Amino acid sequence: MNTANGATLAQLEKQLRRRRIASGDLDGIQDELANIPLHDVIRVVERQPSKRGAVLIRLLPPERASAVFEVLDPVHQAEIVEELASDDVAGLFSSLGAEDRVRMLDNLPPKIAERFLGDLDEDARADTNLILGYEKGSVGREMSPQVAVVEPGELVRDVVEKLRADADDLETIYTIPVVADERTLCGAVSLRDLFIAQPDAQVGDIMREIPSLRDTDGAEDAARRLLSSGLLAFPVVDHGNRVVGIFTHDEAADIVEHADSEDSARQGGSESLKQPYLSTPVLKLVRSRIVWLLVLALSAILTVQVLDIFEGTLAEVTVLSLFIPLLTGTGGNTGNQAATTVTRALALNDVSKGDILKVMWRELRVGATLGAVLGVLGLGIAWAVFGQDIGVVIGATLFCVCTISAMVGGMMPIVAKTVGADPAVFSNPFISTFCDATGLVIYFLIAKSVLGL
Amino acid sequence: MNTANGATLAQLEKQLRRRRIASGDLDGIQDELANIPLHDVIRVVERQPSKRGAVLIRLLPPERASAVFEVLDPVHQAEIVEELASDDVAGLFSSLGAEDRVRMLDNLPPKIAERFLGDLDEDARADTNLILGYEKGSVGREMSPQVAVVEPGELVRDVVEKLRADADDLETIYTIPVVADERTLCGAVSLRDLFIAQPDAQVGDIMREIPSLRDTDGAEDAARRLLSSGLLAFPVVDHGNRVVGIFTHDEAADIVEHADSEDSARQGGSESLKQPYLSTPVLKLVRSRIVWLLVLALSAILTVQVLDIFEGTLAEVTVLSLFIPLLTGTGGNTGNQAATTVTRALALNDVSKGDILKVMWRELRVGATLGAVLGVLGLGIAWAVFGQDIGVVIGATLFCVCTISAMVGGMMPIVAKTVGADPAVFSNPFISTFCDATGLVIYFLIAKSVLGL
Repeated sequence: MNTANGATLAQLEKQLRRRRIASGDLDGIQDELANIPLHDVIRVVERQPSKRGAVLIRLLPPERASAVFEVLDPVHQAEIVEELASDDVAGLFSSLGAEDRVRMLDNLPPKIAERFLGDLDEDARADTNLILGYEKGSVGREMSPQVAVVEPGELVRDVVEKLRADADDLETIYTIPVVADERTLCGAVSLRDLFIAQPDAQVGDIMREIPSLRDTDGAEDAARRLLSSGLLAFPVVDHGNRVVGIFTHDEAADIVEHADSEDSARQGGSESLKQPYLSTPVLKLVRSRIVWLLVLALSAILTVQVLDIFEGTLAEVTVLSLFIPLLTGTGGNTGNQAATTVTRALALNDVSKGDILKVMWRELRVGATLGAVLGVLGLGIAWAVFGQDIGVVIGATLFCVCTISAMVGGMMPIVAKTVGADPAVFSNPFISTFCDATGLVIYFLIAKSVLGL
Repeated sequence: MNTANGATLAQLEKQLRRRRIASGDLDGIQDELANIPLHDVIRVVERQPSKRGAVLIRLLPPERASAVFEVLDPVHQAEIVEELASDDVAGLFSSLGAEDRVRMLDNLPPKIAERFLGDLDEDARADTNLILGYEKGSVGREMSPQVAVVEPGELVRDVVEKLRADADDLETIYTIPVVADERTLCGAVSLRDLFIAQPDAQVGDIMREIPSLRDTDGAEDAARRLLSSGLLAFPVVDHGNRVVGIFTHDEAADIVEHADSEDSARQGGSESLKQPYLSTPVLKLVRSRIVWLLVLALSAILTVQVLDIFEGTLAEVTVLSLFIPLLTGTGGNTGNQAATTVTRALALNDVSKGDILKVMWRELRVGATLGAVLGVLGLGIAWAVFGQDIGVVIGATLFCVCTISAMVGGMMPIVAKTVGADPAVFSNPFISTFCDATGLVIYFLIAKSVLGL
């Protein structure tokens, strides 16, 4: 990839900071922005706070501005739009496809969104409203309604002419759904097939079967299926099998990237930023984390209460308190290993809701094996340093904690999915807290019986 | 997506288990496998242990068997190949593209791999050896060497004829690199451009600039760039800018999926399985987790030692031990939030190594804000229950722990990347342990000074 080297980017960013202070003199930046490769401009905009990003977009020639704006994350687009004057925005806004426009509108305050909708020409508004009619997270919301369809009886020659004429208005000409009466889907031809076929062949002779999507299907699952199929697009149909749009590989790649960012964030106990890290204001970072942190801290009060119950035991044998972080930590780690593995397997559709018992049985065996290894080690080390009794307590606790944590950790994401929650949300916080509290109870029960307290 | 319903799949799996016991009678399954949609067959194979997967593949008609085998993960392919007789394998093996073949060979014992290589015909062996010459994880290892190139002086009509004839042997005809002398890259034409162009136009008139990749570039970064560009392929060039292959969107999607699975697994403290969860043997699951679990448990001994140092304080004020899991937990959570966010930003190229100070300064502010909120809450609650002194200790500790954890958590993945390690590897284990141990030291230092011990 031929990229301007890091030095140039860094220099540009430095200038940007300096020039804003000596305001008014923006010509230097304008020249520079016109001369560096497009993807470097994108990278610079993605690394600036939205206010400064908006200044940059305004300095770009209109075509470049649209090209940059188009590839930004919807949340980032919305923030920049709020900083721009409305005539700057009108141009950017009309260059977006209907589905991208809707995604940006979703992130704007309703009043501003309505004004922009009003400014669109009639066709664009109709397409936008059509997409807005579908539920968030559905295929209908992410498809493009601008799709060419052909009929089985048409000649390849005629189709080629038609596509040549319409190519500019279409989202893709690589996959063309073939329809029978009332636009019901009966197959598809690829541009490759049309290209190789004889001009006087009929579409019906060269069309193939193609998997289709319902407009109400979940967009994330659909996107993963499209990407793993290696195809370029799936036709989208309504309840009557009528073609209503097309779902393309580049939308799918965006959706999967955002879904994976969200899963990653939630595994780490925060909400997804939905925009590049460096363009995110600090307060927004705080907001993305504070809720989970509070939930976690408040549930951790449970551990304080468990310890409170056993305070007598603790006071008697202070050495027991030394192992608290080690035991809760190991339980939490085992639980999170299992939860992470199963959450990813659910996302990739390798595991489904009906597999819960199968998963629990696997994780029980995995946890017991891990627990046996750690338990023997813990027994040996603790015995050597603190004597036989403490050794036995630590070894037995590690075995039990690992077994239970792995099983619960593997089960939780499936339970979450079954009740309709995001598997990644439930896992981390619940599992850490559950493992901490349960682990402590097991620890003190074993300690009391072994030490005869 | 028209899928056979879950009941049918479950029935098939049940039969599979039953029939294996009453061995010999496999005809029923063979019939069933021939009649269900291809992607259901794939799903069934992906959900079986490899031994059973191999039986299924052998029962399929040869063309279906190849179609199923092609889309499995390389590790899973290798496991199945080891279960099959060598004449079954020869057919499956020759149906793979050179780059897929290499990926599977990488996962086979060297002896078996060599035998398969020897069985290939000359052309296929040459392509395979070419790919094997590139380093693992490089673009060269993942590209397809079967690429068509055209010259600027050629007529669209002639190019179309040539592509029609060669289409079956090529990885893609959607993106055609344009080359000057000695195959040096000078642009590209897309099938769409060729399709729309006049037949007597020259390639030079319709060609466009296209980002290219070096064969030695990192494959993961390249794959993310290709997917976010919305293009279908990038040409791959050598050090002399000569075209040596093409890197396509479907390879890119596979690579990104595996990289994200790996990051997800490592965030959860385990190694990536590289094959579907249910097809993975239990002992392999144990192996994927045991190393990190041991590393974590052994580093957690650090916390035992820290507590050991402060055992006197603990014995004097037992109530201090009640808050240990809460404080270490909160520190770990804050650190992991920051680490997860920054790891993802590094993966998406939103943040680079040079941004370390910028990131630390942001995370310092985020951490201090989070710490202030939690600290005030902690102060209030602990004061109400355990009195003013304990309240002040808990509040001050929460503030310090959050600030330091966020900063260190944000810094760690960048440090890891700078020293050449995977950012996701370093983060979770190191941060948890670091936060636990540092948190405890801070806690007892504050406690000693506030309580005057």
